[in-house]
Amino acid sequence: MSELRKDPIVDRWVIIAAERGQRPSDFEPVPQSVSATGCPLCEGSEDKTPPEVFAIRDGTPPNSPGWQVRVVPNKFPALAIEGESDRHGIGLFDHMNGIGAHEVIIENPDHYADIAQVSVECIGNIFTAFGQRTRDLRRDERFRHIIIFRNHGAAAGASLTHPHSQLIALPIVPKLVRDKLQTARNHYRRKERCIFCDLIEQEIALAERVVYQNDEFVVLSPFAARFPFSVGIYPLEHSYDFVSMAHDQCLSLAEALKFILGQYRTVLGNPAYNLTLQTAPNTLPRPGHPDYWGSIEYDYHWHIEIMPRLTKVAGFEWGTGFYINPVAPEDAAQYLREETTSQPVAVGPH
Amino acid sequence: MSELRKDPIVDRWVIIAAERGQRPSDFEPVPQSVSATGCPLCEGSEDKTPPEVFAIRDGTPPNSPGWQVRVVPNKFPALAIEGESDRHGIGLFDHMNGIGAHEVIIENPDHYADIAQVSVECIGNIFTAFGQRTRDLRRDERFRHIIIFRNHGAAAGASLTHPHSQLIALPIVPKLVRDKLQTARNHYRRKERCIFCDLIEQEIALAERVVYQNDEFVVLSPFAARFPFSVGIYPLEHSYDFVSMAHDQCLSLAEALKFILGQYRTVLGNPAYNLTLQTAPNTLPRPGHPDYWGSIEYDYHWHIEIMPRLTKVAGFEWGTGFYINPVAPEDAAQYLREETTSQPVAVGPH
Repeated sequence: MSELRKDPIVDRWVIIAAERGQRPSDFEPVPQSVSATGCPLCEGSEDKTPPEVFAIRDGTPPNSPGWQVRVVPNKFPALAIEGESDRHGIGLFDHMNGIGAHEVIIENPDHYADIAQVSVECIGNIFTAFGQRTRDLRRDERFRHIIIFRNHGAAAGASLTHPHSQLIALPIVPKLVRDKLQTARNHYRRKERCIFCDLIEQEIALAERVVYQNDEFVVLSPFAARFPFSVGIYPLEHSYDFVSMAHDQCLSLAEALKFILGQYRTVLGNPAYNLTLQTAPNTLPRPGHPDYWGSIEYDYHWHIEIMPRLTKVAGFEWGTGFYINPVAPEDAAQYLREETTSQPVAVGPH
Repeated sequence: MSELRKDPIVDRWVIIAAERGQRPSDFEPVPQSVSATGCPLCEGSEDKTPPEVFAIRDGTPPNSPGWQVRVVPNKFPALAIEGESDRHGIGLFDHMNGIGAHEVIIENPDHYADIAQVSVECIGNIFTAFGQRTRDLRRDERFRHIIIFRNHGAAAGASLTHPHSQLIALPIVPKLVRDKLQTARNHYRRKERCIFCDLIEQEIALAERVVYQNDEFVVLSPFAARFPFSVGIYPLEHSYDFVSMAHDQCLSLAEALKFILGQYRTVLGNPAYNLTLQTAPNTLPRPGHPDYWGSIEYDYHWHIEIMPRLTKVAGFEWGTGFYINPVAPEDAAQYLREETTSQPVAVGPH
């Protein structure tokens, strides 16, 4: 089983997945296989994955062809589903067992389907699967937070090209999520308003960083974006948890996602990117429990972040947590709103 | 001038360096030039850089050949040395001008010199230059923190192969540094001991994560390392600030650094890596100033972190701040202590 260890200086947990342990020579870059030959996620290869835990099917039996979306446990999970957390200290150090869930959401039976080009209904199905799996895993009291993410392209850490996302259920609420929650809570307590709602309202009024908007969602180029052309997708109506989305909201979100991923293809030439779905932590711990998050339904506002991988993270960023973004978010928004790249931004010396 | 912007949800500053602004098509990967031809950092090309601000020379005049180490302002700085911070708010957002210093420490006149293979005296000279520049820049009250870093290899974000480091003086103390300081301070207030000293003592007693030790420094494989084969270098004697190093300490540090970078070459095959020097923030703000750090000389313990770039940072990490490390730090320490890779660690399924 993998281990969770906490850095004693920076309040940060790490998964030590030495069961996936590698020799120093195993870190030679492996070219990403693009072909469908031998792909374990393709329709017809259902026996190459662990048995499915969810699928959208046309009445076909589980683990057979005939599905639109299929969710399976990760064959090489970072965290194991069985066991207890066994929290303990070793002098200054904190340790617990690597329990959790690690699942793969196979987004399409077709190896070559592109999420930026499939139908809105197909994308909506993916969010239905995310919601169903999240709801199911939240029943397990050992899990405190669920993160869903999508790595597109080798530079974003994707090892398989078949369209897929991943879900990890964690036995702790990560520091980055806690920091967001704490800011949102402080704001709510002072103002009785959601900080995300305030931010969305301010951005829509200013208009300069709005990339796309429909009836339910807005796509923003963040004011303090760390990475060029990164965006956030926010529900316009306050909502702390994405699983509460109705079917038509799923379709509106699918439209917004299809727009921005399509623009990435057109404007940036299909870059590698990481997408993360940031929703509230699990609320199972009851009042009085140290991990009980109380008024989270007022404080928090779920959202999606997408970060194209166009620049390298270097020593400055690793040493300070401080990022250098070479593209003004307003310029990025302008590029991403438009169909073509015909209007250049000001370019300085190189 | 570039801008500093603060994310209103995560307490994190970003440098928007749009003067370096690029068109979407400018992010095509550019192969790193390995050759010395046209290198602006080579001996004899002193006129291709801004005038030097420091050099170790054998009596030769500034900006001419005949130097061991040379420091020049970065030709395309992320922050500008002239101007005032002009802090202001825009609704929820915080903004200030991008003032600071951005310098390049040219570590060797020879384009092909390798820091893992040059003499200990040559490496010691680099630390002398770091110390001299830090001492000088700290006299400027606008600067609150100085970070020194080294990017080796294209995967670590290096654009030039000539051996060099960089220094950035920032007008704020970054959140990651504040977090470390706060933990160290809390520990000191409770125990009247430095948390880093406690950690070093525990690690030396346990021995399993010690990679190297000499009279003055220890190299540790961190208990909760985020990246495979990353290490920390710590002075054994408590010291909050690296500029206080005497000449013989510089040489001991050079020995430690040469050992670990040599092991990276031997064991890992010269991987790309990021190195950061983490010292205390500038202490110029006087008592009563909101950025006055008080008892920092007791709390903090300077150190160096080195992170080989062997794995990709993906959606899970960006979404949670939580890392998956596929190599147990104890196994990494064992590999890095040894001359060869003859003793494999246990390897799980792939």
